[in-house]
Amino acid sequence: MDNNKKIRGIIPPMVTPLLGHEKLDRDGTVRLVDHIIGGGVSSLFILGTTGEAQSLSSRVKREFVEMVCSSVGGRVPVLVGVSDTSIRESLDLSAFAKANGAAGVVATSPYYFPMSQVELVEYYTALADESPLPVYLYNMPTHVKALLEVPTVLKLAEHPNIAGLKDSSADMRYFRILCHHLRGRDDFALYVGPEELTGECVLIGADGGINGGANIFPEIYVSMFEAADKGDTEKVRELQKKIMTVSCSLYTVGKYASSNLKGIKCALSLLGICEDYIEWPYRKFLPSERVLIRKALLDMGCKDLR
Amino acid sequence: MDNNKKIRGIIPPMVTPLLGHEKLDRDGTVRLVDHIIGGGVSSLFILGTTGEAQSLSSRVKREFVEMVCSSVGGRVPVLVGVSDTSIRESLDLSAFAKANGAAGVVATSPYYFPMSQVELVEYYTALADESPLPVYLYNMPTHVKALLEVPTVLKLAEHPNIAGLKDSSADMRYFRILCHHLRGRDDFALYVGPEELTGECVLIGADGGINGGANIFPEIYVSMFEAADKGDTEKVRELQKKIMTVSCSLYTVGKYASSNLKGIKCALSLLGICEDYIEWPYRKFLPSERVLIRKALLDMGCKDLR
Amino acid sequence: MDNNKKIRGIIPPMVTPLLGHEKLDRDGTVRLVDHIIGGGVSSLFILGTTGEAQSLSSRVKREFVEMVCSSVGGRVPVLVGVSDTSIRESLDLSAFAKANGAAGVVATSPYYFPMSQVELVEYYTALADESPLPVYLYNMPTHVKALLEVPTVLKLAEHPNIAGLKDSSADMRYFRILCHHLRGRDDFALYVGPEELTGECVLIGADGGINGGANIFPEIYVSMFEAADKGDTEKVRELQKKIMTVSCSLYTVGKYASSNLKGIKCALSLLGICEDYIEWPYRKFLPSERVLIRKALLDMGCKDLR
Amino acid sequence: MDNNKKIRGIIPPMVTPLLGHEKLDRDGTVRLVDHIIGGGVSSLFILGTTGEAQSLSSRVKREFVEMVCSSVGGRVPVLVGVSDTSIRESLDLSAFAKANGAAGVVATSPYYFPMSQVELVEYYTALADESPLPVYLYNMPTHVKALLEVPTVLKLAEHPNIAGLKDSSADMRYFRILCHHLRGRDDFALYVGPEELTGECVLIGADGGINGGANIFPEIYVSMFEAADKGDTEKVRELQKKIMTVSCSLYTVGKYASSNLKGIKCALSLLGICEDYIEWPYRKFLPSERVLIRKALLDMGCKDLR
Repeated sequence: MDNNKKIRGIIPPMVTPLLGHEKLDRDGTVRLVDHIIGGGVSSLFILGTTGEAQSLSSRVKREFVEMVCSSVGGRVPVLVGVSDTSIRESLDLSAFAKANGAAGVVATSPYYFPMSQVELVEYYTALADESPLPVYLYNMPTHVKALLEVPTVLKLAEHPNIAGLKDSSADMRYFRILCHHLRGRDDFALYVGPEELTGECVLIGADGGINGGANIFPEIYVSMFEAADKGDTEKVRELQKKIMTVSCSLYTVGKYASSNLKGIKCALSLLGICEDYIEWPYRKFLPSERVLIRKALLDMGCKDLR
Repeated sequence: MDNNKKIRGIIPPMVTPLLGHEKLDRDGTVRLVDHIIGGGVSSLFILGTTGEAQSLSSRVKREFVEMVCSSVGGRVPVLVGVSDTSIRESLDLSAFAKANGAAGVVATSPYYFPMSQVELVEYYTALADESPLPVYLYNMPTHVKALLEVPTVLKLAEHPNIAGLKDSSADMRYFRILCHHLRGRDDFALYVGPEELTGECVLIGADGGINGGANIFPEIYVSMFEAADKGDTEKVRELQKKIMTVSCSLYTVGKYASSNLKGIKCALSLLGICEDYIEWPYRKFLPSERVLIRKALLDMGCKDLR
Repeated sequence: MDNNKKIRGIIPPMVTPLLGHEKLDRDGTVRLVDHIIGGGVSSLFILGTTGEAQSLSSRVKREFVEMVCSSVGGRVPVLVGVSDTSIRESLDLSAFAKANGAAGVVATSPYYFPMSQVELVEYYTALADESPLPVYLYNMPTHVKALLEVPTVLKLAEHPNIAGLKDSSADMRYFRILCHHLRGRDDFALYVGPEELTGECVLIGADGGINGGANIFPEIYVSMFEAADKGDTEKVRELQKKIMTVSCSLYTVGKYASSNLKGIKCALSLLGICEDYIEWPYRKFLPSERVLIRKALLDMGCKDLR
Repeated sequence: MDNNKKIRGIIPPMVTPLLGHEKLDRDGTVRLVDHIIGGGVSSLFILGTTGEAQSLSSRVKREFVEMVCSSVGGRVPVLVGVSDTSIRESLDLSAFAKANGAAGVVATSPYYFPMSQVELVEYYTALADESPLPVYLYNMPTHVKALLEVPTVLKLAEHPNIAGLKDSSADMRYFRILCHHLRGRDDFALYVGPEELTGECVLIGADGGINGGANIFPEIYVSMFEAADKGDTEKVRELQKKIMTVSCSLYTVGKYASSNLKGIKCALSLLGICEDYIEWPYRKFLPSERVLIRKALLDMGCKDLR
């Protein structure tokens, strides 16, 4: 990837289809890749939070990188999550991703030890210095404890091998301040995590959305990006309703921190795309919860559910 | 190890001596093991928080397990930290530890995804069901976000392959309540992390301390355990002063979350025991900070500093 | 006020002009009220967070309610913050506000004792049952610890004497979900606190903004509301730049949790509108910090600074 | 009170007996005061967290100060909680307490606005400069958000009108470090809040406990203080069992943040000492919960329950 050519648009954080503990669902992965790319997305992001990266063994992660890069076959650039508490593991996976043709890597800060902003700058600098692929920062304070504060991001944005930021904080004031400072840059991209906010974020200058729902309905999110990018607020409002329906019906079953992951995998399973096994420490929905997802999909007009 | 014979006493959370990035300090490790065992400790705990486990690659962790188990040569039981966000990695390291002669494993809950108490019970049950070595729970809320609440611990304490708990919360009310419920059990051990509290915790029924300072001055902590275990409060008070001096002078240089780790490694280096390299994302003390540790050691009567 | 006629537009959270400890700046208050109303705002909100309500004595708060209601003289409806940890104090101030002609009251949940969602529903129900003025919920988790979760708000929105919500969480996903459920209601208003988000929030259905910067430049925020309410995104983007300039230059001097309050009061003082004394526990800017605010105002084209 | 004569021993944080909303239980207050003083305590602390101070109106708080000071009649010194978000209110209540014969005031930091350590030092200095009674710091991070860090306490301990600290953090490492630095001082007292820790804290140098359970069973806590102060660990262990029984049976009914307050008031009501009304935002136990407290009291050998 050329740092000067930013990826713009929807970049689904792909789930990792699994048949059971440590067993990838190969057929499901191929179907899911085709389904997502068929929806018009700009890129794929694997092994993120929605991809359950932290729950997978090093072996399975590598197997999945190979499988996806090969299934994609260059149709869109692939970004690989390399977040780890060991910089060595992150860098080794980055090299592996590069060897398989990936276009970039995405990394949260280490999530075990508490880190100061100074330490975050040092850490990401060391990672970007050695990574063979461009690095995207991943701000995810609920999971990693540390917040990448604005001055930290602005400092890191100067590094030639740091190519952008995915913000999953849902703190819109923070995102807006980043847009204020960075939106003119054509070598630094700003992506928003929470799909409920993609419309507004793109309206104010974001380069795209890394939205979990795009695993299921990629075309809705792609339409949203395009409408917002053109400033078509009429269309944005209309699509917001659809996205909010997805969010309020598929991500709210049960009172789990993982309700949205469970909902996405369950929906994909009902649609016949891939299996819904979830790796430890989480578990897939119970049959009674699955019934609610089925109902929600029917209400949204989905047919031929399994 | 026989679950019915609890380990009682001081179990130092050993630092991982390093020459540089991903390079173990083999000679330093041998010296450190001998130094610690020479101080009369009951066991060794490697690859915990003080051991920087999360910052090390899978390869280095295995190399270190081998090295330590071989250096110890059965003189004391070795406990191995297997905390990971992937249960597979934890279990594989547990099998590796068993193959190398370790006596037990210690595990925090997964530290990336937020977990409920119900999920914590399920997770640890799955881990203990499959682990070939007895599992010690490790309560470390500042680092893993989740607290192992009292009912969760009481439930898990019923599992035949769960052998104890290390509590690093510094929440003494919590620890006292656990002692109240569990101190009669001879197949479940309670260890305290913060060394400033070892005296009181043992007085109220703890089975020992997993105290970082025992890397440097193992005999002080061993004496403290023995005095407290006998109820000799005169002696406990006297030793508290020494331990507080260690804590207030060696762990408070700089304003780092890692000041105590940096202090311990720096002191060991000044004492000629092992190198003080610290793995990413942390760094060892600057020369100006090292001067303060040197001064503190001299004030404590240490001689022949490097 | 008639519950069926929602207030829509900009409702500045007015600062409390002070000459010194417990001394109101009466002349400054008159000038500030005229300045703000002259900017076209829809209402005034006094004794909120920006109004330092919690730092003022009961006596001064009453004096201020009288003074403002009399200065406003019915030109716009006045909302009065009655947040307190004692429901009695909140209700007494509500009665006092009613007697002085205020149109509604705004209340956070009690901020000392930790509260569950069930307790929040009970508390607000009790408050709204007895309050002689319509109650607006005030979601301010950084200050009161408790978050008013979505189901809690939806339940309270059914109460006939609860008229709306001010959300200062900056959590846009939360706000969007509330809009999704409540925007059709003409007897329940949704207001956004952080001014950086007013444009988007109104675009997605908010009824207005309670924005601190409207103390200084009311017309900018009023224009923003009008542009967003009409869906004029071109204009929204243009105004966003101005608002972000205010935010990034006036609210970021020093590293205080109160930098924005200090910045607003300092700017009003430089513009000759009112004094900038800040009540304990906060203090006004130092002269060196005041210089930076002066410079920022000059850069924004302000003239005749004191 | 003479600053040079520290109060040592048990200082119950007295509940505020109430008949209903804003109605003090005068007879209950007299009975409670006599009950507590009869148990041998060294002092009384009113209007703290257990006293529901934040839930009471200014009027009721003053009425209660008068009532208690008059009931006590100089038998023991009375400390009055003056925690407020307005320094004026705190100082006015301090003057009122002085006029009624109180011996000192206890104050948390303001609990609405977030405060830095520098601001905490400035605030407490201003409070202590003007307070007509000696000020005791009250560290209560779960309720006020801010923690009084060690250097902040050490700095404030130099102020001639700051007489001590009550620590309710339950962070024993913190408390131990404070003891290490301050235990030699005869003009600065260290008190521990959580009663489960009074034994150990006094063993390591605390001057006493401000323990909620001493409302019900003052003599148990007084015996504990005396045993620990003499270093009689045998007796300490024996009393710990009793205190843990109180804690594990009376404070754990329901899953409320206020379970211990509800439990104490309910027990006092069953013992015929005072009514158990709890002021908003909390409510007293339901009948089904009261049954559990009754049973617990019977198990502890209490007789003649109402």
